[in-house]
Amino acid sequence: MPSRYRSFRCSVPWLILLLQTLFLIRFFFCFPDVGCIYSPSSFYPEFQDVNHMVIFGFGFFLMVLRRYGFSSTGLNFLLIVLGVQCCVLVEDLLLFFFLSCSLAKAVVSMTAVAISTGAVLGKANPVQLIVMSLVELIIFYVSRCINRTFLQVPELLTLMHVHLFGAYFGVAVTSRFPEPPPGLDKNRSSPKSDLFSMLGTVFVWVFWPSFNSILAEGSHHSKKKAVFNTYLALAVSAVAAFMLSALTSKDGKFRMTHIHSAVLAGGVTISYTAHSIQHPWIAMILGLLGSVITVLGSHCLQRCFNPAFKLQDTSGVHFTFGLPAVLGAVAAVVLCVIEEGISTQWNNLSSLGYLMFVDLGAFCQTISTALLTGLITGLILNIKLLKTVHVSKYFDDQFYWEVSFKSISD
Amino acid sequence: MPSRYRSFRCSVPWLILLLQTLFLIRFFFCFPDVGCIYSPSSFYPEFQDVNHMVIFGFGFFLMVLRRYGFSSTGLNFLLIVLGVQCCVLVEDLLLFFFLSCSLAKAVVSMTAVAISTGAVLGKANPVQLIVMSLVELIIFYVSRCINRTFLQVPELLTLMHVHLFGAYFGVAVTSRFPEPPPGLDKNRSSPKSDLFSMLGTVFVWVFWPSFNSILAEGSHHSKKKAVFNTYLALAVSAVAAFMLSALTSKDGKFRMTHIHSAVLAGGVTISYTAHSIQHPWIAMILGLLGSVITVLGSHCLQRCFNPAFKLQDTSGVHFTFGLPAVLGAVAAVVLCVIEEGISTQWNNLSSLGYLMFVDLGAFCQTISTALLTGLITGLILNIKLLKTVHVSKYFDDQFYWEVSFKSISD
Amino acid sequence: MPSRYRSFRCSVPWLILLLQTLFLIRFFFCFPDVGCIYSPSSFYPEFQDVNHMVIFGFGFFLMVLRRYGFSSTGLNFLLIVLGVQCCVLVEDLLLFFFLSCSLAKAVVSMTAVAISTGAVLGKANPVQLIVMSLVELIIFYVSRCINRTFLQVPELLTLMHVHLFGAYFGVAVTSRFPEPPPGLDKNRSSPKSDLFSMLGTVFVWVFWPSFNSILAEGSHHSKKKAVFNTYLALAVSAVAAFMLSALTSKDGKFRMTHIHSAVLAGGVTISYTAHSIQHPWIAMILGLLGSVITVLGSHCLQRCFNPAFKLQDTSGVHFTFGLPAVLGAVAAVVLCVIEEGISTQWNNLSSLGYLMFVDLGAFCQTISTALLTGLITGLILNIKLLKTVHVSKYFDDQFYWEVSFKSISD
Repeated sequence: MPSRYRSFRCSVPWLILLLQTLFLIRFFFCFPDVGCIYSPSSFYPEFQDVNHMVIFGFGFFLMVLRRYGFSSTGLNFLLIVLGVQCCVLVEDLLLFFFLSCSLAKAVVSMTAVAISTGAVLGKANPVQLIVMSLVELIIFYVSRCINRTFLQVPELLTLMHVHLFGAYFGVAVTSRFPEPPPGLDKNRSSPKSDLFSMLGTVFVWVFWPSFNSILAEGSHHSKKKAVFNTYLALAVSAVAAFMLSALTSKDGKFRMTHIHSAVLAGGVTISYTAHSIQHPWIAMILGLLGSVITVLGSHCLQRCFNPAFKLQDTSGVHFTFGLPAVLGAVAAVVLCVIEEGISTQWNNLSSLGYLMFVDLGAFCQTISTALLTGLITGLILNIKLLKTVHVSKYFDDQFYWEVSFKSISD
Repeated sequence: MPSRYRSFRCSVPWLILLLQTLFLIRFFFCFPDVGCIYSPSSFYPEFQDVNHMVIFGFGFFLMVLRRYGFSSTGLNFLLIVLGVQCCVLVEDLLLFFFLSCSLAKAVVSMTAVAISTGAVLGKANPVQLIVMSLVELIIFYVSRCINRTFLQVPELLTLMHVHLFGAYFGVAVTSRFPEPPPGLDKNRSSPKSDLFSMLGTVFVWVFWPSFNSILAEGSHHSKKKAVFNTYLALAVSAVAAFMLSALTSKDGKFRMTHIHSAVLAGGVTISYTAHSIQHPWIAMILGLLGSVITVLGSHCLQRCFNPAFKLQDTSGVHFTFGLPAVLGAVAAVVLCVIEEGISTQWNNLSSLGYLMFVDLGAFCQTISTALLTGLITGLILNIKLLKTVHVSKYFDDQFYWEVSFKSISD
Repeated sequence: MPSRYRSFRCSVPWLILLLQTLFLIRFFFCFPDVGCIYSPSSFYPEFQDVNHMVIFGFGFFLMVLRRYGFSSTGLNFLLIVLGVQCCVLVEDLLLFFFLSCSLAKAVVSMTAVAISTGAVLGKANPVQLIVMSLVELIIFYVSRCINRTFLQVPELLTLMHVHLFGAYFGVAVTSRFPEPPPGLDKNRSSPKSDLFSMLGTVFVWVFWPSFNSILAEGSHHSKKKAVFNTYLALAVSAVAAFMLSALTSKDGKFRMTHIHSAVLAGGVTISYTAHSIQHPWIAMILGLLGSVITVLGSHCLQRCFNPAFKLQDTSGVHFTFGLPAVLGAVAAVVLCVIEEGISTQWNNLSSLGYLMFVDLGAFCQTISTALLTGLITGLILNIKLLKTVHVSKYFDDQFYWEVSFKSISD
């Protein structure tokens, strides 16, 4: 199919060049101040951790397909470095919506793109991925602005919707892609890819406390609490992941995919509340519930939900990031109401109702925006112009990379 | 053997669930204060380093068997996250023994478990590993308390017995396991597993200065000294590892197992004295001696000692961590006596004798406790109830993991 | 060839022992003060990053050959740990030339050795590598001293010539090695080695801002600027790497070797100016140009230059580090002159000429010293005494390592 190859060559580099030129021109005219962007300034090690986690950790975390290793890490890398520049500029544009700009926040926002990439992994070509990630970033900022201005959600919390938004946007996009033919055996993992994915998972796990604490504002104490609560939630969810994996799989063996997704569930669940939980056991319960919902979700979704909606979520972002984020958002509302209720001795019920309404509103707004715009984006991505990969070429590095010698796995 | 599989399924998840529930209840009732646990508070980057080193570094460091990669990293991960929670609670219980609690100390203590796991790698099933790690942690705390209260050893030093304790406990436990049949070829490394193990070794090596300095108390200067001395000792022992490997192996080639174990010897040897050594050349000599004792030890132990006692130390923790720790403990006594002797101009010999007695007492107490309780633990682990793996199934991931496609190596 | 093996055995360990003994004696007599060496003291996390980058990152970055994984990481590790000790001592000797000594600077200097190693990768045996790295280090210090004392270049900038020096020294050395026979297929990469090399590349990429900022002196603000400018330059060069790779390769596919080299080009290009650039868009332009010159250079050099001069630059350090460093040095001169010109309103042209003369002088002095001494070193390395590897044994681990089971790749 030489014509198809040519069209692919004509699109990717020019699209990237166009974007990079736009970014350069924008940077030339808007002069973001270094002091403004590079904030919070005293947290360089944490910024380094989060950067490492998003680029290296997620890159290898996504390496779940046996013939798709180069694309998993390489394209994730490309999307992040494009997206971070885009973020800095979008943030700069939206400054008047009360959102302050910073490199750290840009990197945190890119998690949404990394998560959505996991949903369409192996099915979207680079052009589709780039378009998807830019659209997603802009919509995520708009969604954050709505939460910030109309619902008065604190800025930190608007950013923590990143997992929720990324997962449901990705699921909605992937539902518009055609299903791979049933005989295709490339959408499986091999032991080697599982090992690399484990390597990435452990990286993401280790750096998650930095991720949850980097934006914790106010006193030094709230940062400490964020680190400690996240660590405990992650520890409990890792323990629960092994337990549930042995319980639910055949013969009581551990299953690698369970471990990959469920060990991170605690970090996602606690992301809304890490800086405010007072008692460690609440963090531990949340980590446990996150792990439970992930493992149960992976069974239910893969058996009932996904076949019913004909969607294929390649690396399972729906149950790895989506369900724990829903749980975390609900838990945040409940904890907030209880705390407020106790402090007012349940006298001011209308204020409680308002509080609940605002938090649930932000949650519903985020999830519905993600689903709706994800569907539209998925439809746009599958127009003839962008669709260059035949369904039989899914999940294969050879279509995008000059593989030097022989295929990456087997 | 379906019945055996079923018994394995019935044990692991319930044991984990039971422990996790106990930890939750304990956390619910004892409310450890965040400020207390998350100390020393200003050292978040160092804590992150040590956490990374123990979970990621040791996980991949242990990947020395060609068909045991999933279990090496996965089970190490499970043991660490279970153990850290256990540590925080045990420390909380033992507060009245002058030991302060902290998350950093909990992670440092887990090194003992990671080391002992290396000794029984591939032979112990998950149930045995979990029981072993919990028993080991509790005994290690008791041993520390004895050193702290009866021998007045500074708390930092009690924690630095972690390598000594872990290695000899592991050796004692592994001596109670039956030997694998002689024809089994799974207890070897493959080039791929060696490469992953090298990756883990380099991680452990790089983060070792953080490990030795995280608990250095007092002035900022003693922290600096700990980092610098550890770095020099590690550098010299890495150089010596290559030298000795080429000297002792056939044809003057380097041997990967020598490199794996001997590059870390300097860090273990210096751990007792890193914060107090005044002259860099002493640190370098200690690193050199640590490397020498490791490489010579690996030859002597594997040819004479291990066959004589019928013990199989899978990843060689006896010579990687045990012998350098013994050397380090002896060196600490000698250096302390010399320093004290010079400052008192060798007038107060009885006080010197007392000093030597206390340090050697702590050393002997730790090593004998480790060996004795290790033997008992090894006997307990091999009762019928816990022994689910036949000796022919040793060193194989397929017994514990749903391996998706084909075996991990070959 | 038993006689050749024996000669190899007789040389490596004794050479290492000799060097280590010399270092020990030197350390014994010169007592470098800890406070002096371990500076700047407040930057431990950055030091850790740079150390990690040089030992782990470059070790795996160099793993581009399919049968040379052990040697790439292992020998890089050996050279770094030997070299760091050597550096500390050389710096101590040269203190009266206004160069202050520090462990951080020693590790930064080792980058030159890691880069040169990449040029002779697979062709030089351990003895040749050790001799080369020590000679290179000493000459690099001498070159820095000349720049510092005669040309009054700030110390930070003398150290940033490390990429330039390392690349051209390596190219000059490799030109004196005989070419491998044309039929040899071991000097290629395999998908697995590419994946490990990608892993190392991402590590080096992530830690590059720490590398460029660790020595930024003066205010906290210049450190922030160095981090931010380097991050932007790296991001743009990574984006451009993907773009140019798709444009220049057949069928518009990405080529792994392009990605490996071009994503780092931005960091090299910006290294001279990261702390002084005022506007982010200048950093972005430099990153873009660095990437362009790397990808174009890789085509021109590999097709015209290398065959003409009969040199084989195994991992392409000439276009990965050499060309971007030249570009960066020229850009530094231009930027400096423009800035100075604007501030003096172009009145003081003679002072501008002097400024340009000094900067270009330092650049020319570094590059010509590197080329000249590299040629001489290459000639010395290929005398009979040191040359133990036949050309047909190039690029093979089996010559230096006891490979346990079967070859590392295929």
